[in-house]
Amino acid sequence: MAEDGFRLSTSRVAIIGLGLMGASLAMDLRGHCAEILGASRSPETLKFALDRHIVNRVTEFGTQMDCELMVLAAPVRTILQQLDQLRELPSGSPLKKPMVILDLGSTKTEIVKAMRALPERYDPIGGHPMCGKEVSGIRQAEPGLYREKTFVLTPLERSSSQALELVNELIETIGAEPLLLSPEKQDELVAMTSHLPYLAASTLMKTAISKDDPQLWQVAASGFRDTTRLAASDLTMMMDILLTNREAILNALNAYQDGLNQLAILLRDGNEAGLRDYLNQTQKIRSGLF
Amino acid sequence: MAEDGFRLSTSRVAIIGLGLMGASLAMDLRGHCAEILGASRSPETLKFALDRHIVNRVTEFGTQMDCELMVLAAPVRTILQQLDQLRELPSGSPLKKPMVILDLGSTKTEIVKAMRALPERYDPIGGHPMCGKEVSGIRQAEPGLYREKTFVLTPLERSSSQALELVNELIETIGAEPLLLSPEKQDELVAMTSHLPYLAASTLMKTAISKDDPQLWQVAASGFRDTTRLAASDLTMMMDILLTNREAILNALNAYQDGLNQLAILLRDGNEAGLRDYLNQTQKIRSGLF
Repeated sequence: MAEDGFRLSTSRVAIIGLGLMGASLAMDLRGHCAEILGASRSPETLKFALDRHIVNRVTEFGTQMDCELMVLAAPVRTILQQLDQLRELPSGSPLKKPMVILDLGSTKTEIVKAMRALPERYDPIGGHPMCGKEVSGIRQAEPGLYREKTFVLTPLERSSSQALELVNELIETIGAEPLLLSPEKQDELVAMTSHLPYLAASTLMKTAISKDDPQLWQVAASGFRDTTRLAASDLTMMMDILLTNREAILNALNAYQDGLNQLAILLRDGNEAGLRDYLNQTQKIRSGLF
Repeated sequence: MAEDGFRLSTSRVAIIGLGLMGASLAMDLRGHCAEILGASRSPETLKFALDRHIVNRVTEFGTQMDCELMVLAAPVRTILQQLDQLRELPSGSPLKKPMVILDLGSTKTEIVKAMRALPERYDPIGGHPMCGKEVSGIRQAEPGLYREKTFVLTPLERSSSQALELVNELIETIGAEPLLLSPEKQDELVAMTSHLPYLAASTLMKTAISKDDPQLWQVAASGFRDTTRLAASDLTMMMDILLTNREAILNALNAYQDGLNQLAILLRDGNEAGLRDYLNQTQKIRSGLF
């Protein structure tokens, strides 16, 4: 531990946004830092967070917050607005060291771009934990949500080694596994593994709905349930993801559409050998995953 | 219970095919019928079934089987071959009543067509229980697999009320819920809820594999896991499904591709209102399911 670095145990951590991700993080940090502050636009959420001792006290984003680490845990476009606001906030902080800013946003290119524009009094680093649920809100929060999950970090050129150290200590504390990626690379990869699957799930729902037959739901079993689960994801979160990662998602969607076209031709032609080749590879690789 | 009907408790049930479905059925029928006979082309499976008391004794398909109910529990095209064989088998059965034939095949139009051609000494009825796993084989079998699951029945014009009664008793015994459908309707519905999701899952895998980046798997989280689970399905089973339900699957795939095209245009244009409309409906309906 560098002598002049922050340590988690003596740091005050402000979590901005107490939804599923923020509140679950607070639960896992309890007892591991000096104080946990929480901010939310919902008075009901703040009351719940205090009543359940999820945070030690509430704070308000945009005021002068006395913390060493600020975690932005909102949908991507809200984080972008908050980064804009941070830039505009008057300095005059009594802090000796820049405040470390970590975010949990699902897309990183635009967020890291906005982080680059932050004044010197901040020490920003991009983050994206690969966990979540198709439900949202503080009532869905749970301890252990991050355990054994990949936690992507997209450090900036300017991110200090102290910031990286503090964030790595946080990741270790909640049992996650850090993975360093460039923002662009992370956005390309999650377009394939998360954003495209969301669009695929939603369109499976759309197709089933268009059939307009109540008996369809009676024959929808666990395969349909799992394949469409992501379609229930929080809409605000997903809209922000789609609109801040358009290019990578369109590329992934395009490759997906090519694959489906190929399948449709094989099926139309009754090309058994071709179908078997196509599906055998995916079967083998999928069976070895997870 | 009709006086001349079979009752499950006094019936010998022969299960042809001791994979996941057949062996799980045998487990749930134990103690509820006179005897459970099992047939498999794999000596290892037969040994396992006997050692674990999953069946009372083994039999061989194609010999003169002394049972009141025969359950065909193999992939669809194997069932079609077995129905052909049954037609060719010499009569000379000492049975007073026709043998009830139930199958568990995933597609019903071609099977019911083949059932129509069976001689009078059989009393066939099509079935399709809406359960399963992405893994296969007797070692994956488990009691309770059918519990609270929809069990589609596609009776023939010639199916006797006694056959329906016996099969309904079986369905009740294993805790499933019967749903009567025409073979064509069942095939259209499962094309939407099961076969299309399988193709969607496989093509998501294909798209991810084509990225050829080992770090992709590190960021693949529960969303990817669930959305692609069906891609691990047994290939023989799925090939038979695809090739015996081509028309309905091509129709479903076509509607799916239309939905994806619509999404791609909305996303390319950054049409936020349009995207929200599209995804809001699917989000609302999916949240209310399961």
